[in-house]
Amino acid sequence: MDFFEAVARRRSIRKFTDEVVPESVIEKALEAAVLAPNSSNVQTWDFYWVQTPEKKARLVEACLGQSAARTANQLVVVVADPKKWKRSKPALVEWVKKANAPKPVHLYYEKLIPVTYTWGPLNSFGLFKAVAAFFTGIFRPILRGPFFKRDLQEVAIKSAALAAENFVLAVSAQGYSTCMMEGHDENRVKKLLGLPSSARVTMVIGIGRAHERGTWGPQMRLPNDQVIHRV
Amino acid sequence: MDFFEAVARRRSIRKFTDEVVPESVIEKALEAAVLAPNSSNVQTWDFYWVQTPEKKARLVEACLGQSAARTANQLVVVVADPKKWKRSKPALVEWVKKANAPKPVHLYYEKLIPVTYTWGPLNSFGLFKAVAAFFTGIFRPILRGPFFKRDLQEVAIKSAALAAENFVLAVSAQGYSTCMMEGHDENRVKKLLGLPSSARVTMVIGIGRAHERGTWGPQMRLPNDQVIHRV
Repeated sequence: MDFFEAVARRRSIRKFTDEVVPESVIEKALEAAVLAPNSSNVQTWDFYWVQTPEKKARLVEACLGQSAARTANQLVVVVADPKKWKRSKPALVEWVKKANAPKPVHLYYEKLIPVTYTWGPLNSFGLFKAVAAFFTGIFRPILRGPFFKRDLQEVAIKSAALAAENFVLAVSAQGYSTCMMEGHDENRVKKLLGLPSSARVTMVIGIGRAHERGTWGPQMRLPNDQVIHRV
Repeated sequence: MDFFEAVARRRSIRKFTDEVVPESVIEKALEAAVLAPNSSNVQTWDFYWVQTPEKKARLVEACLGQSAARTANQLVVVVADPKKWKRSKPALVEWVKKANAPKPVHLYYEKLIPVTYTWGPLNSFGLFKAVAAFFTGIFRPILRGPFFKRDLQEVAIKSAALAAENFVLAVSAQGYSTCMMEGHDENRVKKLLGLPSSARVTMVIGIGRAHERGTWGPQMRLPNDQVIHRV
């Protein structure tokens, strides 16, 4: 399907039909998801395709029983965990060696990523970095983070959101529909998936064939001149 | 362009050629951006297309002078500001009235959105909501946020990231390239754009024609089985 057609036909669908979504549709959408850009390419994301009936039931409950979850044929949970930089580091260091990357990039992956992604006990190391940046920032442009656990979770969530958007567009391009759900009990979803405290549930995505009553009306967007500013 | 082709050809380009990107390319990509799903459809995003040479120079400096900003033909800043719910509320209430939405949705937009998006002085109202949720959550599934200013910024950043992903894919679908930059001095970017304290710079995007040395090598992704889990 044409890119702009896939974007235009995507709507958040709150009711799905009973139609079974072929596994290949989800697989193809997940492959598109991991091609999204992400912070420093550390790929601190995970995609949980919840398939066992018992887990699905618990996930629907954690989504407060909303119909987009209840009627979804498939459910995928997008998770962000900044600590997953450790999983990527060996492959990134290897990749940089093979690639035509300048010296600072090598140092970045070998030395700076571990420093950037460490917040220390009670955010102590983060505080040290924040104070140093504050004083340096008076004199010249400097990064204003990420320093603390929450900052790094935010970075990871942002990247996971980029992947989630690829996912829903890829489902749309295959003729099916989705609903991104932020309305869920994050504690219960984390418990269900056995996630560590550093992990954050970015969203739960329901996938299925759109029911004719899947939306409440035509899509509503603010006029472009309210949100797009030429400066 | 085919959707999956647009996804596959997108790479983060760190060096652009001198080629001018037609304004229509950016306009079309911005139109795709605002079609992204977003939290409660409150559209708490803004897109600053920085065009004046003096502002562009300051933005490049705030991006620490990195070549993806320096060589970009066009620069767009994606901003998230949870307080922008006020801008959308009248249109949303109007939309819900016209749409075939159930009663709770009317109440949601008229009454609950203002409560959800208010954190109060020193997060006091957020704290009240968090405590109430904590105790309720012992007994049944419940939302674990957003309660505090930071939570609502996180929600807004997540939605803005979805729009940003649409944007970069839409540029890719038109044959041009992008680089999402989180590496910038957020304080200086906010000052440059005159943004309030509630606003967060989600990312700066450079747009141009990819230079042959725009990437350091082939794209690197972890094996799918490391990030995709069937449970």
